[in-house]
Amino acid sequence: MTHLPISADLIAEQNDKRLEAVEEDYAALSRKLTRNGINISDVRQKVSDFSVAVPSWGTGRGGTRFAKFPIPGEPTNIHEKLEDCAVINQLSQATPRVSPHFPWDKVQDYSALRRDAEALGLGFDAINSNTFQDQPGQSHSYANGSLASTDAATRAQAVAHNIECIEIGKKLGATDLTVWVGDGTNFPGQQDLGRSLDRYLDAAAEIYAALPDDWRMLLEHKMFEPAFYSSVISDWGSSILAAQTLGEKCKCLIDLGHHAPNVNIEQIVARLHRFDKLGGFHFNDSKYGDDDLDSGSINPHQLFLVFNELVEAERNPRGGFSPSYMIDQSHNVTDPIESMMSSADAIVTAYSKALLVDRDALHAAQETNDVMLAFQTLRDAYKTDVSPLLAAVRADKGGAIDMIATYRASQYRERKSQERAAVGLGAGIV
Amino acid sequence: MTHLPISADLIAEQNDKRLEAVEEDYAALSRKLTRNGINISDVRQKVSDFSVAVPSWGTGRGGTRFAKFPIPGEPTNIHEKLEDCAVINQLSQATPRVSPHFPWDKVQDYSALRRDAEALGLGFDAINSNTFQDQPGQSHSYANGSLASTDAATRAQAVAHNIECIEIGKKLGATDLTVWVGDGTNFPGQQDLGRSLDRYLDAAAEIYAALPDDWRMLLEHKMFEPAFYSSVISDWGSSILAAQTLGEKCKCLIDLGHHAPNVNIEQIVARLHRFDKLGGFHFNDSKYGDDDLDSGSINPHQLFLVFNELVEAERNPRGGFSPSYMIDQSHNVTDPIESMMSSADAIVTAYSKALLVDRDALHAAQETNDVMLAFQTLRDAYKTDVSPLLAAVRADKGGAIDMIATYRASQYRERKSQERAAVGLGAGIV
Amino acid sequence: MTHLPISADLIAEQNDKRLEAVEEDYAALSRKLTRNGINISDVRQKVSDFSVAVPSWGTGRGGTRFAKFPIPGEPTNIHEKLEDCAVINQLSQATPRVSPHFPWDKVQDYSALRRDAEALGLGFDAINSNTFQDQPGQSHSYANGSLASTDAATRAQAVAHNIECIEIGKKLGATDLTVWVGDGTNFPGQQDLGRSLDRYLDAAAEIYAALPDDWRMLLEHKMFEPAFYSSVISDWGSSILAAQTLGEKCKCLIDLGHHAPNVNIEQIVARLHRFDKLGGFHFNDSKYGDDDLDSGSINPHQLFLVFNELVEAERNPRGGFSPSYMIDQSHNVTDPIESMMSSADAIVTAYSKALLVDRDALHAAQETNDVMLAFQTLRDAYKTDVSPLLAAVRADKGGAIDMIATYRASQYRERKSQERAAVGLGAGIV
Amino acid sequence: MTHLPISADLIAEQNDKRLEAVEEDYAALSRKLTRNGINISDVRQKVSDFSVAVPSWGTGRGGTRFAKFPIPGEPTNIHEKLEDCAVINQLSQATPRVSPHFPWDKVQDYSALRRDAEALGLGFDAINSNTFQDQPGQSHSYANGSLASTDAATRAQAVAHNIECIEIGKKLGATDLTVWVGDGTNFPGQQDLGRSLDRYLDAAAEIYAALPDDWRMLLEHKMFEPAFYSSVISDWGSSILAAQTLGEKCKCLIDLGHHAPNVNIEQIVARLHRFDKLGGFHFNDSKYGDDDLDSGSINPHQLFLVFNELVEAERNPRGGFSPSYMIDQSHNVTDPIESMMSSADAIVTAYSKALLVDRDALHAAQETNDVMLAFQTLRDAYKTDVSPLLAAVRADKGGAIDMIATYRASQYRERKSQERAAVGLGAGIV
Repeated sequence: MTHLPISADLIAEQNDKRLEAVEEDYAALSRKLTRNGINISDVRQKVSDFSVAVPSWGTGRGGTRFAKFPIPGEPTNIHEKLEDCAVINQLSQATPRVSPHFPWDKVQDYSALRRDAEALGLGFDAINSNTFQDQPGQSHSYANGSLASTDAATRAQAVAHNIECIEIGKKLGATDLTVWVGDGTNFPGQQDLGRSLDRYLDAAAEIYAALPDDWRMLLEHKMFEPAFYSSVISDWGSSILAAQTLGEKCKCLIDLGHHAPNVNIEQIVARLHRFDKLGGFHFNDSKYGDDDLDSGSINPHQLFLVFNELVEAERNPRGGFSPSYMIDQSHNVTDPIESMMSSADAIVTAYSKALLVDRDALHAAQETNDVMLAFQTLRDAYKTDVSPLLAAVRADKGGAIDMIATYRASQYRERKSQERAAVGLGAGIV
Repeated sequence: MTHLPISADLIAEQNDKRLEAVEEDYAALSRKLTRNGINISDVRQKVSDFSVAVPSWGTGRGGTRFAKFPIPGEPTNIHEKLEDCAVINQLSQATPRVSPHFPWDKVQDYSALRRDAEALGLGFDAINSNTFQDQPGQSHSYANGSLASTDAATRAQAVAHNIECIEIGKKLGATDLTVWVGDGTNFPGQQDLGRSLDRYLDAAAEIYAALPDDWRMLLEHKMFEPAFYSSVISDWGSSILAAQTLGEKCKCLIDLGHHAPNVNIEQIVARLHRFDKLGGFHFNDSKYGDDDLDSGSINPHQLFLVFNELVEAERNPRGGFSPSYMIDQSHNVTDPIESMMSSADAIVTAYSKALLVDRDALHAAQETNDVMLAFQTLRDAYKTDVSPLLAAVRADKGGAIDMIATYRASQYRERKSQERAAVGLGAGIV
Repeated sequence: MTHLPISADLIAEQNDKRLEAVEEDYAALSRKLTRNGINISDVRQKVSDFSVAVPSWGTGRGGTRFAKFPIPGEPTNIHEKLEDCAVINQLSQATPRVSPHFPWDKVQDYSALRRDAEALGLGFDAINSNTFQDQPGQSHSYANGSLASTDAATRAQAVAHNIECIEIGKKLGATDLTVWVGDGTNFPGQQDLGRSLDRYLDAAAEIYAALPDDWRMLLEHKMFEPAFYSSVISDWGSSILAAQTLGEKCKCLIDLGHHAPNVNIEQIVARLHRFDKLGGFHFNDSKYGDDDLDSGSINPHQLFLVFNELVEAERNPRGGFSPSYMIDQSHNVTDPIESMMSSADAIVTAYSKALLVDRDALHAAQETNDVMLAFQTLRDAYKTDVSPLLAAVRADKGGAIDMIATYRASQYRERKSQERAAVGLGAGIV
Repeated sequence: MTHLPISADLIAEQNDKRLEAVEEDYAALSRKLTRNGINISDVRQKVSDFSVAVPSWGTGRGGTRFAKFPIPGEPTNIHEKLEDCAVINQLSQATPRVSPHFPWDKVQDYSALRRDAEALGLGFDAINSNTFQDQPGQSHSYANGSLASTDAATRAQAVAHNIECIEIGKKLGATDLTVWVGDGTNFPGQQDLGRSLDRYLDAAAEIYAALPDDWRMLLEHKMFEPAFYSSVISDWGSSILAAQTLGEKCKCLIDLGHHAPNVNIEQIVARLHRFDKLGGFHFNDSKYGDDDLDSGSINPHQLFLVFNELVEAERNPRGGFSPSYMIDQSHNVTDPIESMMSSADAIVTAYSKALLVDRDALHAAQETNDVMLAFQTLRDAYKTDVSPLLAAVRADKGGAIDMIATYRASQYRERKSQERAAVGLGAGIV
């Protein structure tokens, strides 16, 4: 049986203070939607069913090459991270799965870890491998690449690590392996751009071969960082061609912050879906590069447009539609628990608004090139304040109407700062 | 027999003044290359064999939506354009083919046009169709798209126009059809991003079906403009997936100015080659968007890196290597003839430098991850001043050592400004 | 007395159908705001008092260098443009001023023009000069620049035109002169970057000297286009330094689409205000460059953040706060009247949401570095659906609850397409 | 007396192998320049006099938030760093000054440190303060900012640290203080954009007040990172306004990697010079953001255009011209000594080419709007291979003709890897 970190009484008490207001706003929203021919109960059910995973590493303070500023009470191991994830899920009721990262989350007994998670109301999502860093005692350095390395032994080590991740994942109940590599170059000429992709594809094929039948391999592209001149899987074009080469179980994962400036990400969603390779998302936001800011904090309208494509794809599944959703962001200046609750809210908000789009009207306007009406159909949905709907769903499921306030009232972080070991300052790597 | 626009005597006279200096510099370059183990004669032959097409429309002054500032003596029809192209080729000896554009270059008798071109020493390159503008009297407007239009009659009209372009091209001796469409949207929601690509692919397949066996269809992608929210073929990813869908004779064309900011274009070259879809180039340069500036004027190093990939691809042809090269730029503030001669020089310069790369040393450094040595191997080639080599090649073939000075001495433009009708001011379309 | 283009009865009839719904939603919004300690009447008054100018040229279809696709019933002279502006203002009740452009809007009798405007319920806003195009019969071409031209006579002509604009403006009741020049270069080396600014500043000082005491000169910067390598007033830094050099009556104007990718425009607002040089705005939206898309259509959150700074500036006026607001966008695929009504709505929406920010809570969170709370304070305001408030304000003032539907019901465009002369196709200037 | 790290005999021996080739190429270059009316001796003198500082921290391997991959023999303290800098200067003869960073380079006895440097043939350049990281035992954290912090004690601590840097600098013979702060925000609303600049300016004024008469304070702006939504000194506009506010001894420093995409940096050089605030440079290169790649490795033409402005500024000094030049880059995949020698070469190359520009011809073409000739005048200089000139200058002064080969022959790094303590792996701060 589950043992959740926040007292249900506290949540109830906090909700009580806010329930009347939520009900009033919900009723108003319901009337408004009804006028527009939308049954709020249908939407409510879909919102209630929606969820997004959180990354285990997201529970710690992130930083930059210049510095990391820790906060008291940060988790220092996967057990503490799971506990923090349980808080996020308990209050948001939207994040029931955790995506682990290896070797960061290595333990001796994965069955025990899985039981620990279940006791906290959590399951495991996609497994993330790490071949962008060297670990103490590692035989071969990834300094010059991993899956695309010119060195066969290094590639073999990277392949073996990914296969180990699959093995761990089986024990944890996961069915996705997310592969992101930092392989690339900082100088023109540093690597042969064609041969490095050949090597990547050969090594990735070995991982693919080890994939269970019901697993997927998700390729994550990234334009730059840590490599600053070229990256082996730098864009969705490279990603989809690699996924085609590897096979049917290989799909593409979109991280919202991994694109060139100005790129139309929602069109990439549509393209990957059109060619049956849309595998999932890493949600975050950004203004300049891979800023890893909180989902929806900078451009919530873009997030809505992404979900507009996803809802459209669900209705028009072509070769299938089952994307994996995860938050992936760096919490440099906030309490990670607060940021992930706020981000889950932003994501569910975008999804809910996309559900409100009058798709018959939209399609009709698109077919007749009534540009203004098509745009206004999207805008009407975007304008709608879905907060009362989301709050109602959370309250229904035992979550908090006001997640931040309830979390603060629980004094969870203060307690953890007493219990947990301190984390050191991050060293500057300028 | 050919009748060229510039007097051979004038060219000879101009070259005579500069020949001694060229020979001196050439000898010094030859000694330097010999020291580095490079036989200058081999390079000279390849440079001599290299050529790039020029676009017929490039001979007129270009402009922006704000204004166009014409110059006296601009060509007003395909015959005058061919004459200007003949000047470029005569002096540069590097641009023996002209890429026409329809309906702009429509004539009654294409056999006669082909003979006219041959008399000027010119052949025809890829045919360019135009479904981004409405022509007077056109049945269906492209205001809402062409190949991706929601309207079947409009799509059929666009398909028919492209097939007509193929028919014209056969008469002109061309074997490539370049398809660029402006189809896209200015508003979120304006079109269904998936269905518009479906329509594009269906219509493009009809064009592809009309392609002769020895022809290629080149898809040109463009990030934005004239559409400013989404474009149906916006990036190389969309382009290669469309080319895969259409078939083997369909390849991708890279215009250097059609990418998102910061994108690594040389890697796109390598990717398209890796997956057997590199069809050709539209050369120009840019700083902000599709600026259509003169090739190599802003970032000559990038042009070198592109040719470095091309030379590499030629040596490692995988599924084949026969890209089509064309200049495609807008001459808003210069005499187009001068700009295209200068641009041809920049392109041949980049190619020549790429030929000078010590590829054995480069590959060895790449294999051993000697990053600095790999970079310096490219840099040594880039640093080399190949001007005397290019001047010698031009002089050999009857071209001008100093193209601009010789052109100016010929007073060609002044003569044309007497002979040709004036071109009007461009209207501002703000 | 005023004679407005849309029948008041039609508006009333259209509003009647929607009034009940608006009142219901308004009441719900009012209760919600009241709970949050906000008096909706105060906000309503401010929203009612707010207005934004529309540009006379915005009433025609815009286009790109590739094409312009006209619609039936486009205006062809300033009188027809004013009529269209009157429709926008009548239905939106938010755009009572028109910004004219010379020489495009030249007439014989400006007093008559002013009376015409007044009869339509309109006044005149900032005067826009044009030295980026050549007009038929013009003595000196702007091909090589205007205020920054190397040619003294060209500069003098550009100065004289601006002074003429001031003279016209006096007759029209305007008090702002907006100066945007296309001066710049397409090639490295084309101009001396220092001396061209010297010439610009000298010429601009002559215009400044002719400015009446109660006028302002607004400098509009633009990163690129029509110049694609450098622009003389390319960024806010150049703009504010020029404004400082010229004098106290010279301020900076921000066009939302004239910035480098990723730039934080709301911070530029704060900077210009901090140094007492914030003069005004040209509202539009963009994804790639100076796309001139409809205000708020791409990034409504950015528009909100801009207004957040403006509301903050109004409360903390430092050296004064009186920015000039104007829509400036290109309507390439919509009916310009619909686009400007929709844009006015987006702008007033952003302003209204900025008014809802709990500034005491925001400042308190900022002072204590409660980052999440500060962010949520903004987000709470942004989330709010202010549509019923705006609709109520419009209805109060005689405008339309549903502007687009009412406009369509009026069949205004259909009527105009009968009355007005057709506009030709725009020529491609590739 | 100096005691340099590389054996003079080794250098001489290495040079002997290459001297003949250099002399031959130099003679050819000299003849070519003479033909163009340029006296190579004048250029040679200027090149010989030119120098650029290196940063002490640049001698270690850099990294990213994802990882740092150390190399054997990295320096671990300022003495070892100076030794590495001495190698760079001895072989390049272009980097006689070191820019230290505090607290990273703190020692007990700065007089002794200065003597150590002098013994290695080195002096000290601009002092760099650090308020973007917390140091162990620090009283107040910079987690929420330093000079712009809302906390007065934190600001005071940051001011005191900068004043301490000045005191240290006096002992080291420096006359510049470079101030870069990471202050900024990751969320809209996190800070008041106006008030945070007020605080920054107030605190910076206290530092300015402590500046000796013959010192300069150099403000370094940066668009983003470590702050990802806004930065207090994000662009040259903010920088120059701050410098104006602070006073005459305050100037602006340009880091080539700290700008928005596509920005014309050479125009910023011209602008800062025009308004008498050009203080200096941090040289590096970048493709995506603040990549901190090797100077000139990605866009050598841009580096040339920057130096073209600098040479122009030197000839037209307006309010004075004495910029401070420093390399500032992160060496993630190369031996930092090799990268800085290669970078010094790229910088001197750009400067040398800028010296070769025929400025009379350039100005004449600019004045007459002969755009093509103006461009070609720059391009002719850029095309020139100045390698033999630079090699000759180095050999003259005791440096190495082939810096990389000579350095490798010296086995300096191998020796240091025996002598020096190992550096640990960088932790990932994702």
